[in-house]
Amino acid sequence: MTNSNNYCVIMAGGIGSRFWPYSRKSKPKQFLDFFGTGNTLLQQTFDRYSQIVTPENIIVITNAEYEELVKEQLPLLKEGQIILEPTRRNTAPCIAMAAMYIRSIHPDANMIVAPADHLILKEKEFNEAIHKGLEFVAQSPQLLTLGIKPTRPDTGYGYIQIEENKGNEFYKVKTFIEKPQLEFAEVFVESDEFYWNSGIFLWNVNTIIDAFQTLMPEIYSKITSGLDDFASCPNISIDYAIMEKAENVYVQLCNFGWADLGSWASLHEVLPKDKQKNVIIKGNTLLYDCKENIIAMPEGKLAVIQGLEDYLVADTNNVLLICKKDDESTIRRYVNDVQVKLGDEFV
Amino acid sequence: MTNSNNYCVIMAGGIGSRFWPYSRKSKPKQFLDFFGTGNTLLQQTFDRYSQIVTPENIIVITNAEYEELVKEQLPLLKEGQIILEPTRRNTAPCIAMAAMYIRSIHPDANMIVAPADHLILKEKEFNEAIHKGLEFVAQSPQLLTLGIKPTRPDTGYGYIQIEENKGNEFYKVKTFIEKPQLEFAEVFVESDEFYWNSGIFLWNVNTIIDAFQTLMPEIYSKITSGLDDFASCPNISIDYAIMEKAENVYVQLCNFGWADLGSWASLHEVLPKDKQKNVIIKGNTLLYDCKENIIAMPEGKLAVIQGLEDYLVADTNNVLLICKKDDESTIRRYVNDVQVKLGDEFV
Repeated sequence: MTNSNNYCVIMAGGIGSRFWPYSRKSKPKQFLDFFGTGNTLLQQTFDRYSQIVTPENIIVITNAEYEELVKEQLPLLKEGQIILEPTRRNTAPCIAMAAMYIRSIHPDANMIVAPADHLILKEKEFNEAIHKGLEFVAQSPQLLTLGIKPTRPDTGYGYIQIEENKGNEFYKVKTFIEKPQLEFAEVFVESDEFYWNSGIFLWNVNTIIDAFQTLMPEIYSKITSGLDDFASCPNISIDYAIMEKAENVYVQLCNFGWADLGSWASLHEVLPKDKQKNVIIKGNTLLYDCKENIIAMPEGKLAVIQGLEDYLVADTNNVLLICKKDDESTIRRYVNDVQVKLGDEFV
Repeated sequence: MTNSNNYCVIMAGGIGSRFWPYSRKSKPKQFLDFFGTGNTLLQQTFDRYSQIVTPENIIVITNAEYEELVKEQLPLLKEGQIILEPTRRNTAPCIAMAAMYIRSIHPDANMIVAPADHLILKEKEFNEAIHKGLEFVAQSPQLLTLGIKPTRPDTGYGYIQIEENKGNEFYKVKTFIEKPQLEFAEVFVESDEFYWNSGIFLWNVNTIIDAFQTLMPEIYSKITSGLDDFASCPNISIDYAIMEKAENVYVQLCNFGWADLGSWASLHEVLPKDKQKNVIIKGNTLLYDCKENIIAMPEGKLAVIQGLEDYLVADTNNVLLICKKDDESTIRRYVNDVQVKLGDEFV
């Protein structure tokens, strides 16, 4: 079923600071086994795409400082399967770099771009969708993003609006909506014109490289002149740089039990809950008068908690974080404050 | 200044379960250095009374399972200075046992009975008060308890009412009031007839032994017949067994900066606070929107906490406790539940 012309680029360079204190600069969330399955998010992602493309055609793109972690967790990767970003420049420059690299091997390759921190519950539906998407971009010079039917008015996700829904699988994108306010998100969920932007992209390498050349010549020119210029690329996401500007952007409507594990609150959405809607990640817990919390403890440690509602309690070896779970963006502020006041030891 | 006829009995056999998870069955609070001074509560108590009675006349009474901890923390104690309770029978039987033992050495000794978990801030005033109290009980066959001028309407302490306050130091006790409701405690603080019952007692050994013989013959007879009968003594406190029943009970009015470290909330009362009245015991903390909490962390660990008011956060190596700090009695319930559900490892 695999096609040697199809490639997958797994993006595994993020810091994952919204998952602090579990996610640390020295070992971000994609390198952690959050679900206690014995596999880290990166390993799960690699296994998932190994069923779709030849494993030798999977490329992991990460920050230079995580090279050893990637090699340790994916020991089968060969020399050319790891691309290291010399510095962090968000997703656009690294995707451009990966596309150029793949085209240098296969001038007409199709590529999947996938973050390393997604949860996919329905594997069969997922595989089918990706295969159809690869066929679509092989035949048509479009930039394809996977859209997910929203199941709740999540204000942490980006949304995609399509033209009138005619029951098809592929639509031209009408507009992208960044994290909306709750009242809008509620309308979006009711409508059948709005889909979550999964951040999983499919395209032919020539289509994306053409898009960079037209819409982001400052990145295109740096990348073509070699890695030395990478640091001078603008720091910009693929969404801002290309997807929101290009004319040839399509969405494929999917339904395969998807979640972006972007934050603690997103974990709370997807994990099993007790009767009071508490989510427990490892550890022993005795809860009294507790509702809608997410509690992450080190293996073997006991938490006795009374009287908390809507909190995150994340305990690690040297950091304990307790905060309202719906105020995600503030975790970044805590991490910054910790860095400034206490230095690298705790971030 | 010391008088070889004066003895001090330090009671160090409690489990201190209201200080869980710091206080553990295997190492209760009196064996911990809560204030980071380098001395445990037991060591501080021993040093305090060493300035008042000959150190050889200090006797530590504890449970058999804590023998090694006492020897380790007070290595200068000689053979006869540790009395081990074979089983826990509250304070009355062990005080009777200590009094008999002391009388066997000094038939006319005076003795101080002091819990191992008190905080005394004004040492000079304390020493003067104890010396006067020892003189009082040497001259008069009374049972003396130290009463402390209340500084707040604490509902966790017992109170002593005296007859009309005439500016003297010693008064006959009118009545004992167990932990009162807040509205009563507020009246007590305003009045000058009510004092906190410190639980520090002074008497001549013959006075207390006579009181046992008259008021608690079932303890008197067991103790005189030897340690083998200790387990069959009634499980009763000295307050219920003797102080609240005897006719010859006096109180000495004192003011030496006293606190009974009975619970986390009592620690919150006595320790320095930040501007938002949070008390931090060791560890690094970054607090956001936090008020009136007490936070105890392991040495070197960081706590980042947002949005808690009036909570206790007590983190140890293998247990994290988070609960409302004013609901002390429930900590015992948690400890019981933990014991039942998870066994001895965490209690």
